[in-house]
Amino acid sequence: MFDVAKLKAIVGDDWVIADRAQMERYLIDETYTGLVMKPADNVVVVKPGNAEEISRIVKLANEEGFPIYPRGGGTGVCAGAIPTRDGVVLSLERLDKIVEVDRENLMVVAEAGVTLGHLLEAVESEGLLFPPHPGDEGAQVGGLVACNAGGTRAVKYGVVRNYVKGLEVVLPTGEVVTMGGKLLKNNTGLDLMHLLIDSEGILGIITRAVLRLYPRFAGPATLVISFEDRHSAIRSVPRILQSGVIPMAIEYVDRDLMEDTARYLGTTWPVTKGKTHLIVIVTGTNEDDVYEQCQAVAEVCEANGAVDTLMAENREEQAHILHIRSEESMTYKAQLAEILDVTVPPAAVGDMMDEVEKLAAEYATRIPMVAHAGDGNFHPHLMLELKERGLDREVKRRIYAKAVELGGVISGEHGIGKTRLGEIDMCVDAKSLELMRGLKNLFDPNNILSPDSAIK
Amino acid sequence: MFDVAKLKAIVGDDWVIADRAQMERYLIDETYTGLVMKPADNVVVVKPGNAEEISRIVKLANEEGFPIYPRGGGTGVCAGAIPTRDGVVLSLERLDKIVEVDRENLMVVAEAGVTLGHLLEAVESEGLLFPPHPGDEGAQVGGLVACNAGGTRAVKYGVVRNYVKGLEVVLPTGEVVTMGGKLLKNNTGLDLMHLLIDSEGILGIITRAVLRLYPRFAGPATLVISFEDRHSAIRSVPRILQSGVIPMAIEYVDRDLMEDTARYLGTTWPVTKGKTHLIVIVTGTNEDDVYEQCQAVAEVCEANGAVDTLMAENREEQAHILHIRSEESMTYKAQLAEILDVTVPPAAVGDMMDEVEKLAAEYATRIPMVAHAGDGNFHPHLMLELKERGLDREVKRRIYAKAVELGGVISGEHGIGKTRLGEIDMCVDAKSLELMRGLKNLFDPNNILSPDSAIK
Repeated sequence: MFDVAKLKAIVGDDWVIADRAQMERYLIDETYTGLVMKPADNVVVVKPGNAEEISRIVKLANEEGFPIYPRGGGTGVCAGAIPTRDGVVLSLERLDKIVEVDRENLMVVAEAGVTLGHLLEAVESEGLLFPPHPGDEGAQVGGLVACNAGGTRAVKYGVVRNYVKGLEVVLPTGEVVTMGGKLLKNNTGLDLMHLLIDSEGILGIITRAVLRLYPRFAGPATLVISFEDRHSAIRSVPRILQSGVIPMAIEYVDRDLMEDTARYLGTTWPVTKGKTHLIVIVTGTNEDDVYEQCQAVAEVCEANGAVDTLMAENREEQAHILHIRSEESMTYKAQLAEILDVTVPPAAVGDMMDEVEKLAAEYATRIPMVAHAGDGNFHPHLMLELKERGLDREVKRRIYAKAVELGGVISGEHGIGKTRLGEIDMCVDAKSLELMRGLKNLFDPNNILSPDSAIK
Repeated sequence: MFDVAKLKAIVGDDWVIADRAQMERYLIDETYTGLVMKPADNVVVVKPGNAEEISRIVKLANEEGFPIYPRGGGTGVCAGAIPTRDGVVLSLERLDKIVEVDRENLMVVAEAGVTLGHLLEAVESEGLLFPPHPGDEGAQVGGLVACNAGGTRAVKYGVVRNYVKGLEVVLPTGEVVTMGGKLLKNNTGLDLMHLLIDSEGILGIITRAVLRLYPRFAGPATLVISFEDRHSAIRSVPRILQSGVIPMAIEYVDRDLMEDTARYLGTTWPVTKGKTHLIVIVTGTNEDDVYEQCQAVAEVCEANGAVDTLMAENREEQAHILHIRSEESMTYKAQLAEILDVTVPPAAVGDMMDEVEKLAAEYATRIPMVAHAGDGNFHPHLMLELKERGLDREVKRRIYAKAVELGGVISGEHGIGKTRLGEIDMCVDAKSLELMRGLKNLFDPNNILSPDSAIK
């Protein structure tokens, strides 16, 4: 199958792990408990140092016929990085250099293995901003691009795709190609770069990215706005946007879930009024602008039934609120089978939530949910007990069916990976799936890269 | 080859033009004088009324082996819409319905044949905004998407790609498929929608688009800032952005070109100081914010050598300035061979302009130029006299070579069409071109759609 000596000859002895005991952390990712997949028995981990070594490994894989699983930070939740066939895990961790923070062009050039945390630090130390924040700061640049990461801060400037201006990619046939650059406009033939974005490691191994930066805006300020009912909260979202304010983030949460999480974390949720909240993060051109935007948001929400508004301006208070929000699933992580990732037109989030609540009652289960309300991305949490009763797939498919009925899709930001392949035909037609298979075959005729993440 | 009767059976007798004298305007587009291509002798124009009729025409084309040239507003400048082989021109003009302006989701759903002018009017009458403005308002939605149109207003929220959230497409094999929807996040497999954007009519016929809208911001205010030299103007651009202000547009123009244009138009350019200008268009959350941003822009520019700033706030004054800017090529249209469309990293625009000026001197010709300075997109104008001396291709290739050397590409917003196919290998590698050919073959195995616009 594959010859460890040949891999060592490419990357050096120190950068190959063949001993199973030492590779455990490379065999898993953050896939939810209820969906975790068993890694294959014969796996070797290689850690190349540059694109040229990756190219040689990929060429070897084509010659000898073994699969390669590219691996970034391992923060994916859909088993995309789990090597389920005998083969090579190719970790990008040694491509960890920030090549350049280019203040003149407002771009950062980073190798694929740079973590989100490292990227943010480098950019902020130059007084600039990379707005998106898709959760785990251990995620790596290559993975952020390959999975078109989203997160809470996608309302104003969009998901990671919008920031990607250039890529260096090792194709599944071994060629190293460059796409785009420090360019805000580029219409030079069919756009391979945008095809690589969200390709989840099946069309190429991203080794370097050029990402657009923004100036550091004034703010952020964080508002927690309380409502007595879900629909008043959700209805306020388009009203905020129509008022001319585009926040970085508009999150929907239930108060009891935030209180449970705070308790679990040994702290207190700072808001005591209302049943549901919108958490709104605002930035602006200067402090006055931020303040006026906050006022406008508060007024719009009050006119739509808000009962209380907390405005957090200092860093600590904001961090406290966002920390509790981001840790919400920790409270019941051990009981969690799976977090769904449906996305619907933003105004349909309330209907989607009603349906999930109805299903929770019908199946006598608990389905906690949070939503990136500003962009219609919605995360219902299915519990292990539902899986133990053999009902998780049924409930999931009913939630998916409702999302599709509302004009939505089964994944907004987490992707398909391996765990959602079985349901992708609920929102993508047969001809489009055929074209996706054709694309995989065009780029990767020997089916080398993450073969079991591709549409069958 | 093709049977007019069969086409009439699909769309109705009234919607087929077979008489050459009546189809002249369907045989050309806005391709520059020096590059215009001769239309083929045997052409039929069909005007289907919906996607289903288009599907039937495409299936017929596959059966009978004739090419189809999809046609939007005919405002392209690269001969993409010119039928250079015997075949069918398929005009989208009857798909002219705004299906919905959705205030709750801040989206507009429009058929492909809706003109930009009609779209803007419909959106603005609902108090909303579609920010991009790629010049000619006779352009149609399908073409804007298929060509990923850019224009001046791409600095703040990007080119048309950023606004496209859903498409309905008739594939070259006849299937009608839907991609995306009213969705701000969508990670469901390989992204066919982003592959269709900027596919210039070779991978499918776009019949409907869902586009993201924004609230109508306060403003716009337009500044004309004067500098004595080019580099002070260009150097000010990143300083403006670093200050935290992101204008909708930052244009570079030479004063003498604006004065010539104004004279040609029988009016006066309102600024008399400086040799070069930045034209900056600012919007904001409210009037105070717009005013403060304008102040900030003026201060930054003054600190970088600006000698004068005109702030135009009223509608007429702004319209006057932008009208003169947009008509600049009219002054010498009859002498114009071609307008180039190179794009470089924004900070390199000054170097690019120096090179063009040097080449103009070397070849003893005049090369007027304007630049979308905020996004590095740069339009040198080559004159017919250069072509008459047989030197246009040489000068063009030298400009392209410099752009590529600076990290740029040969087209930022106008696209490749047919007229730039010969130079695309200057900025795209052989393997990527091979993949583009493979993509064309995958989507369009019988090479039906705009066959002569595809990479050979």
